[in-house]
Amino acid sequence: MPHAESLLLELFVIFVCAKVFGEIFEQLGLPAVVGEILAGVVLGPYAMKFVNPGATTLSIAELGAIFLLFTVGLETSPKELIRVGRTSLGVGLAGVLAPFLLGFGYLRLVRGDPTHEAIFVGAAMVATSVGITARVMGDLRVLHTRVASIILGAAVADDILGMIVLAVVAGLGSNAGVQWVQLVVLLVEAVAFTVFMVFFASKVIHRMRPGVERLSTQNAPLILALALCLGLSVASERIGMAAIIGAFFAGLAFAEYSVEWKLAPRINAITEFLAPFFFFTMGARLDLRIFNREVIVACVVVTVLALIGKVVACGLPVLREGWSSALKVGVGMTPRGEVALIVALVGLQMKMVSQPAYAIVIFMTGATTLIAPPVLRYLFKRDAPEAAD
Amino acid sequence: MPHAESLLLELFVIFVCAKVFGEIFEQLGLPAVVGEILAGVVLGPYAMKFVNPGATTLSIAELGAIFLLFTVGLETSPKELIRVGRTSLGVGLAGVLAPFLLGFGYLRLVRGDPTHEAIFVGAAMVATSVGITARVMGDLRVLHTRVASIILGAAVADDILGMIVLAVVAGLGSNAGVQWVQLVVLLVEAVAFTVFMVFFASKVIHRMRPGVERLSTQNAPLILALALCLGLSVASERIGMAAIIGAFFAGLAFAEYSVEWKLAPRINAITEFLAPFFFFTMGARLDLRIFNREVIVACVVVTVLALIGKVVACGLPVLREGWSSALKVGVGMTPRGEVALIVALVGLQMKMVSQPAYAIVIFMTGATTLIAPPVLRYLFKRDAPEAAD
Repeated sequence: MPHAESLLLELFVIFVCAKVFGEIFEQLGLPAVVGEILAGVVLGPYAMKFVNPGATTLSIAELGAIFLLFTVGLETSPKELIRVGRTSLGVGLAGVLAPFLLGFGYLRLVRGDPTHEAIFVGAAMVATSVGITARVMGDLRVLHTRVASIILGAAVADDILGMIVLAVVAGLGSNAGVQWVQLVVLLVEAVAFTVFMVFFASKVIHRMRPGVERLSTQNAPLILALALCLGLSVASERIGMAAIIGAFFAGLAFAEYSVEWKLAPRINAITEFLAPFFFFTMGARLDLRIFNREVIVACVVVTVLALIGKVVACGLPVLREGWSSALKVGVGMTPRGEVALIVALVGLQMKMVSQPAYAIVIFMTGATTLIAPPVLRYLFKRDAPEAAD
Repeated sequence: MPHAESLLLELFVIFVCAKVFGEIFEQLGLPAVVGEILAGVVLGPYAMKFVNPGATTLSIAELGAIFLLFTVGLETSPKELIRVGRTSLGVGLAGVLAPFLLGFGYLRLVRGDPTHEAIFVGAAMVATSVGITARVMGDLRVLHTRVASIILGAAVADDILGMIVLAVVAGLGSNAGVQWVQLVVLLVEAVAFTVFMVFFASKVIHRMRPGVERLSTQNAPLILALALCLGLSVASERIGMAAIIGAFFAGLAFAEYSVEWKLAPRINAITEFLAPFFFFTMGARLDLRIFNREVIVACVVVTVLALIGKVVACGLPVLREGWSSALKVGVGMTPRGEVALIVALVGLQMKMVSQPAYAIVIFMTGATTLIAPPVLRYLFKRDAPEAAD
């Protein structure tokens, strides 16, 4: 297949470089995902010019984003969300509102950025990427503690609230300015979609189950999950949201059946293959030349606001559990990840976000992801040195 | 991600249509893969014009071909090949030579087609796709019989010999005509590559094993297998072979560790996602307008030669096991599949194969795949009606 040669070479180089940087970061005790983004920054067209991802690679990277969110959805049980109840919901809700308002306020009022840009950056500060925290807690063997279950519960609420925010924000992108009527319509649309997917989608699949298991196609549940992932991605784009929202809810719909149908390890394999292209190209899109003093200041301020927003807003609702628990929950909710990156990407592609704002989000994502694990490790080890070794 | 919208829609429509056609075929007791190809023929740009796969979809389809062959390699144990010994190797070798010579002879001598076109069609008739046969034998619960192990053993030899033929044929494509010196060089190159991969690659991985298991990257063996798949695909294109040959040998290298590292189900999931795009676009490339009387005659003749070639050449070496066993082995080796399609695709892309010759290969692949299962079922049921129900 001659014309595929350069594409295959590009995919090979990106995949290997992303994974080598990831492995180096892991060896240093840092999150692999930051290494994969950094690979893109360093080797991409704005720095070493070693690889310049072409159109097909960018499309594959977007499929990677879709599968990333599909995986997040698969791991987010709606039943669990209903079970963990008010504490986690309170943590999640506060942790969504505070960073958004802090980020929006800083960009709009202090820096004087346009409203739509401030909204995008604020939205990127919303969603916790709990994978990093879960991994740290797993390493410390504290996943069974009450703090861990509050964090994991809140992360579920946070995921869903983050999706609503993204749905609204992505919908706003279709117009140049921000129209408040449209915002309300989008909010209602997004909430209705969410309520349907959280409460009814898994019931629909429950009803379909006997039919699915009668199908002759090999791996019929996997095929059905993949089809729903693509279908809801298309649908959510059609109604003016981002594709990944559909992918997330497709995952959510199948979450209850993930174990029974062995979906998680198999969907994960697809994500393992596609996600490095996403993280690498996110880094490769970062134009390093825009890092002047002003932008660096904004990066640091937004990162600090992103940290404070989550620590305070997520810590407060659990203050009655004690300062130490509140602090752990707060810090545990600070890492941002793929959703923040995707919000920035959607903004960049819609030309609603400028390169400096894109840089701010990438910086904030990387920094929060790097800062949280050592702090969390310190907090857990301080309180229970024996359990944490 | 606005510009991805039409791509996602295209991927969704192709995936669902391919799988629906596949399911209908399965329900009718026919192989799903023929349904997936037919979906492309019917809905593609030459018939109903419902979907016209774009450049990105075609690239994803080619990744599908690469993962198909990677999966075939993973399921092909080099140790098994060494174990099954002479009978299977004889069956495999005869079954590669006879169809090639029959196909080549018919196109070159009877139809008077150009040498390079006759070589491509002959090469496409070489490789058995044993998946269909294995599934029929599995359904009949006769996988434990001696006939089944001869077939499965021969399929291993056949896969590797088929790859050598494809390597040589794809290498020839770089020039307009066929140069016999070059052919010998390519043959030596292909055999050397094969010998290295069969005898040494898995030893290299065996040595690397402790290192791989020390890596901090999650799913390190899977990542390594994916990297080798992409890397050898690029490498085999660079030395003038087809990308899938590298993918096949990458699979072969990991075959011994497929169970231990749980590679098979996870690589399979990637293939399940990507392969439908390959089969659909293979169908979509078929220009139905070229089916005049002459082409239809050629399709039928080539299919008959493809059947006779395998039945006779694969049956003869096992004739001492009795007529009935010989016939089962022969029929079991007749289905052609993804390798035939890829040979045709490589030929089409290199402009070494015209649309009529492409049509002949697609027809032959579909027909052999459709004819083998009922005949095989009949042969097994006739001999042991009780065992086969």
